Amino acid sequence: MASENEKIEDLHTGQKLIQSEDLFKYGIDAVILSDFASKEIRNKNAVLDLGCGNGIISILLAETSRAEKITGLEIQAEAAQLARRNVELNSIEQKVSIVQGDIKEIKKLFEPCVFDSVVTNPPYMKESKGKKCANEKVAIARSEIKCNLEDVIRASSFCLKSNGNFFMINRPDRLSETFVLLQKYNLGAKTLRLVCPQDKSEPTMFMIHAKKDFFPELKVMKNLVISNEDKTYTDEVMEIYGNTSKGANLPYQETTCR
Amino acid sequence: MASENEKIEDLHTGQKLIQSEDLFKYGIDAVILSDFASKEIRNKNAVLDLGCGNGIISILLAETSRAEKITGLEIQAEAAQLARRNVELNSIEQKVSIVQGDIKEIKKLFEPCVFDSVVTNPPYMKESKGKKCANEKVAIARSEIKCNLEDVIRASSFCLKSNGNFFMINRPDRLSETFVLLQKYNLGAKTLRLVCPQDKSEPTMFMIHAKKDFFPELKVMKNLVISNEDKTYTDEVMEIYGNTSKGANLPYQETTCR
Repeated sequence: MASENEKIEDLHTGQKLIQSEDLFKYGIDAVILSDFASKEIRNKNAVLDLGCGNGIISILLAETSRAEKITGLEIQAEAAQLARRNVELNSIEQKVSIVQGDIKEIKKLFEPCVFDSVVTNPPYMKESKGKKCANEKVAIARSEIKCNLEDVIRASSFCLKSNGNFFMINRPDRLSETFVLLQKYNLGAKTLRLVCPQDKSEPTMFMIHAKKDFFPELKVMKNLVISNEDKTYTDEVMEIYGNTSKGANLPYQETTCR
Repeated sequence: MASENEKIEDLHTGQKLIQSEDLFKYGIDAVILSDFASKEIRNKNAVLDLGCGNGIISILLAETSRAEKITGLEIQAEAAQLARRNVELNSIEQKVSIVQGDIKEIKKLFEPCVFDSVVTNPPYMKESKGKKCANEKVAIARSEIKCNLEDVIRASSFCLKSNGNFFMINRPDRLSETFVLLQKYNLGAKTLRLVCPQDKSEPTMFMIHAKKDFFPELKVMKNLVISNEDKTYTDEVMEIYGNTSKGANLPYQETTCR
């Protein structure tokens, strides 16, 4: 089932995931974003996973959320193909489908206002910034080579039903731009949560939940802290991992050239 | 020197401040904002304290920052008069002047692009929101009756020199609007810091530093935590108070109808 350069991982949900050494591998950001979103996804919802990579978020949401239908959109053919194999591996073809396509061409791919929720773990780095990845497939997943933050938020707004939910994880240096773009594309920020590697450390990520055409009062939650001082996961992160040992297999990673 | 309904307080800087029972009394927000701003205020800078109330921020900055000239703008005649008396009480008339006037009429009060820094602790509450204050003078200081967030940010941008510094404290529910308005008025968010009553609690305030006509990468600092579990101040807050006992006299207050 897994070829050379591939490995089958056990997920904490009891599901499995093929990862390829040649492609972008998921980190804890995908896991905490799935958890952040799944609590808000209602029964029978249609969910779009924008830039789904190997399918990790779609696969987790198929198990942990009440979504009826999940669509993963991925620009890279090889990653989309891997995501499809991951869907089959977990026998969730009835629930999850993978579309290969470009976020910038979203209007050719989907009708407007058809999804109840969009979940996205987009490339964090501006194209001009950060160290270059030798592996172009990995570079596309982590840097804004094929799409930028505005493309992601514009596409999300296009796809969402009115009052639909947008969930994103990104780096704190993109926070200002995120609020400006959400406003520009009629998405009202509802909840913000900073993510810190340890208590009393600077945040290295943030998660945001916004609603289309609705501008609620923003609530800033307490920080999500990943690790204790002894480098074990905090109780909250262990709970996200269902208190399984799976969490322990996935050390917290900074966004590096993986 | 202090009349009925007034009290002279010793500040942690060795300065003094007359407070009136009839007017808005300062809280820890003014103290931490002064500290946040004073580190960035350069030698010979001209500073504007927008909505200065009884003058607390202007007076602290006169002692703790390298500002050459500080101007406090206050709309309420009685508060402006009290701020002037506080300036005299501390013998800093050479450095600090108080102007009575309306932020919305800023163009009639000051020339454009004349200040190096603007520091502001504006009304936090939307006019429609929160419990009403019986005391109208207090209500004007805490709710957006005479000016709103956009008035404050527009006026700040008008007054600031290019590359000048904007410092504000506000409540987390205004964070999204703040980023959108900063962008609208050409102020680039540089540093954001959330303020939490205790470790692992939700933030109740945020401080932001932005620069006019300059869009640096946003840095989100670790949270400023006010109190330890035993309700004593944290080391960092004690340091802001110069490790004097003065901090202990000013318990952390939520924004309430004072």
